Amino acid sequence: MATYELFSQKLKTVNIGLPSFGEDLITQEVETVLVDWQIPAGGSTELVNALKVIENAEVEEANKLTVERMLSGEPVLIGMERAQDVILGMGPRSIFHSGPPLTWERMCPGVQRAVLGAIIFEGWAKDRESALEVVKNNEVEFSPNHFHGAVGPMTGIISPSMPVWVVENRTFGNRAYSTLNEGKGVTLWYGDFDDSTIEKLNWFREVFGPSVKKALDKQSGTINPFNLVAQGLSMGDEVHVRCQATTALLIKELVPLLADAGVEGSDIAAMVRFMARNNTFSLNLAMAACKSVMDAAHGVPNSTIVTAMTRNGTDFGLRVGGLGDQWFITDAPALEECLYYAGFSVEDAVADIGDSSIIETTGFGGMTFASAPTIASFVGGGVKDAIELNKQMASITYGKNKNFAIPNMDFAGSPTGLDIRKVVGSRIVPIIDTGVIHKDAGIGQIGAGVAHAPINVFEQAVLAMAKTMSTKQ
Amino acid sequence: MATYELFSQKLKTVNIGLPSFGEDLITQEVETVLVDWQIPAGGSTELVNALKVIENAEVEEANKLTVERMLSGEPVLIGMERAQDVILGMGPRSIFHSGPPLTWERMCPGVQRAVLGAIIFEGWAKDRESALEVVKNNEVEFSPNHFHGAVGPMTGIISPSMPVWVVENRTFGNRAYSTLNEGKGVTLWYGDFDDSTIEKLNWFREVFGPSVKKALDKQSGTINPFNLVAQGLSMGDEVHVRCQATTALLIKELVPLLADAGVEGSDIAAMVRFMARNNTFSLNLAMAACKSVMDAAHGVPNSTIVTAMTRNGTDFGLRVGGLGDQWFITDAPALEECLYYAGFSVEDAVADIGDSSIIETTGFGGMTFASAPTIASFVGGGVKDAIELNKQMASITYGKNKNFAIPNMDFAGSPTGLDIRKVVGSRIVPIIDTGVIHKDAGIGQIGAGVAHAPINVFEQAVLAMAKTMSTKQ
Repeated sequence: MATYELFSQKLKTVNIGLPSFGEDLITQEVETVLVDWQIPAGGSTELVNALKVIENAEVEEANKLTVERMLSGEPVLIGMERAQDVILGMGPRSIFHSGPPLTWERMCPGVQRAVLGAIIFEGWAKDRESALEVVKNNEVEFSPNHFHGAVGPMTGIISPSMPVWVVENRTFGNRAYSTLNEGKGVTLWYGDFDDSTIEKLNWFREVFGPSVKKALDKQSGTINPFNLVAQGLSMGDEVHVRCQATTALLIKELVPLLADAGVEGSDIAAMVRFMARNNTFSLNLAMAACKSVMDAAHGVPNSTIVTAMTRNGTDFGLRVGGLGDQWFITDAPALEECLYYAGFSVEDAVADIGDSSIIETTGFGGMTFASAPTIASFVGGGVKDAIELNKQMASITYGKNKNFAIPNMDFAGSPTGLDIRKVVGSRIVPIIDTGVIHKDAGIGQIGAGVAHAPINVFEQAVLAMAKTMSTKQ
Repeated sequence: MATYELFSQKLKTVNIGLPSFGEDLITQEVETVLVDWQIPAGGSTELVNALKVIENAEVEEANKLTVERMLSGEPVLIGMERAQDVILGMGPRSIFHSGPPLTWERMCPGVQRAVLGAIIFEGWAKDRESALEVVKNNEVEFSPNHFHGAVGPMTGIISPSMPVWVVENRTFGNRAYSTLNEGKGVTLWYGDFDDSTIEKLNWFREVFGPSVKKALDKQSGTINPFNLVAQGLSMGDEVHVRCQATTALLIKELVPLLADAGVEGSDIAAMVRFMARNNTFSLNLAMAACKSVMDAAHGVPNSTIVTAMTRNGTDFGLRVGGLGDQWFITDAPALEECLYYAGFSVEDAVADIGDSSIIETTGFGGMTFASAPTIASFVGGGVKDAIELNKQMASITYGKNKNFAIPNMDFAGSPTGLDIRKVVGSRIVPIIDTGVIHKDAGIGQIGAGVAHAPINVFEQAVLAMAKTMSTKQ
């Protein structure tokens, strides 16, 4: 006998262990959106012709398969390990970062500072000056997280001894990784550090990480990140910049596992206090889950579905399902339409940054903007504006995933499967919810809002795909 | 330096420690609502005349003061104690129940069964038959929770050894009490019991209650229930039938206190698992907080603001701020407009039941219906219908409390201060969100939805108030 059972029936939970593609999980009605009429593909003959080449049944079939893979992906939290023990390609002197590949010289100041902080945290140098020496002497190897099944928000720095969430996509067997979210204060992810930063990272390495490892080693696979995401979407989160509910849900799942594993009460208290005051704590876990799903969905020949978008304050990179290991790269966009704290403007800001756009790539964040009315002000208005924007996002995707319902859109599913053809044809680009960091040290966050993915990487990808398909025929 | 700080700025948190009434906290714009035109007060000359008598500056002033008291109330969780140790008027053989006073004979079957369960739990009888003997021999004393500063959802049974939340309204010093929510399964609050029910109540008494007591004795007053409510409203709860977010927030506040107090890890694990699977766990705490606020707001002469609505499956009772200890009582309404599980109908259902309507009385639940899109189906539609209904509720209240913002209404405050004059004049009655229980044993919940407060108690109260004011003049 169930009590108050009916109240939760509207919540669409994740279809766990879906054996094969449930056609009924995705809907494909055409979305009517209010936008100024645009000349298709901006009037470029080259693009219009390229779009014609890739508007065909082969691509449709490939996209269907890609989205099937996305929907059948089942990310499960299986552990927490030191990065160097689990991430392929991570050497003893590796430092991984967000976005496309970077040399030290091309890193934005925030990423550079975070790298120096990681070097000190790892004990490879005592202070900023000697850390800089370590870099100049080529004693560290840089590589993008995305090349190693990993993701990190903002600067996204991962160094060898940091604990990482280990998420396995049960359907396909691949794994993905992300660090613990540092929360507020002076932090590496926000591109800065001081003694408190290093102290917190040490606590992660010595206490938080090993405690969660102990808990998950004992009860591996009991936490399903997409189940938390589905619930979070019905509780005011878009699970990118607002993760308040998802974090609370994660805490209530995690605590019994920690207690069962015999973690000290004082450590549990400190860990829960830290998580409870960090409303983006669950972000990194959700990102790892998304990464595990998108990596498994990548690689279907002829697919025009986006499988990664990522930025690092310098470059913006786009990966497309049917275009193999190519990354389409352009400048990371300036954050012109964000809301800035008093006294700051886009002039002060690092450009768009972080692997966290894997959230939008998978169909959350900006794709489920209407689920978080508390951030409706990001798009200059109320819930109505948020819903309108969300409809625009739906218009550039393959369909809507019923597993992830948006309450304010009368439980329409989340827009899923960003299609480069639809982006280029309509010139509607994905929005990416984001925080904004100052260029200089000692300031940190100066705003928040939405970034717009740059159209030209989508154009490059459309041309590349058209070329590939023409060559084959 | 704050990270992602902006994202939480839209959340209106409780104005803690408000020294005096903040005029800016309440707004009073006139609400345009879509209702069929009604003859004022249903065309009754007696009521129309009574309304004329009480439409005056004295009442306006009294209502303003009542709402000021509501807004300045600051409920704080100060402890968890055995009911008999803290609730005034609770004797060693008392059993308290929801709604207006009842004799055994007039109790609905669900309340009767819950009483028998409580007798067995207290050890006053071994089984149903001997428990019934205890009742027949007048060995127990019945009294309504509301007469003792207490509240309980559904059957609302409180017996002497049950642990109760102790909430103090810091502004006025009065206290209120409510039991631990039993959650799903065969439960007293849903009007039934079996061995599992008694086992859970024993665990509450022996483990859960004492553990929370230990935690709160050490760190009393650190949990602010209205702060949780304010956050819950921005996270998909209307904090009556949907308390999923508020419960998660309560868990993350409670765990560090439990751990700090040295509660065993195995007990913490069991407690968190219980709370995590009980999405109405926070309801009773919110009810006690509401009760502490409404009791302090009660008693302003000439006030036409409702200070309690309560029901017990037999009677519905209404208390009004300026009408002292009078309760206006009528039959508890049948739950005709609820949604029933397949195979059940209103014929099977116990009538409207529970003290939980203290939630609506204070300005949540049905008053903030639009904040919980997941239960929009209760009113036969989508978010739009929920918003329309919420506007109707606003039209029968004094104003809107900005401390409790409803995201889907572009952060309008919660409708606060139900005015019997507006109810009778417009014939729009408060809605009360509710679960539905079967009359017979062994079935439990059979539906959920909204109940409509019966108009005639509001009419009785209007006539009584008019009489009082006429007599004085």
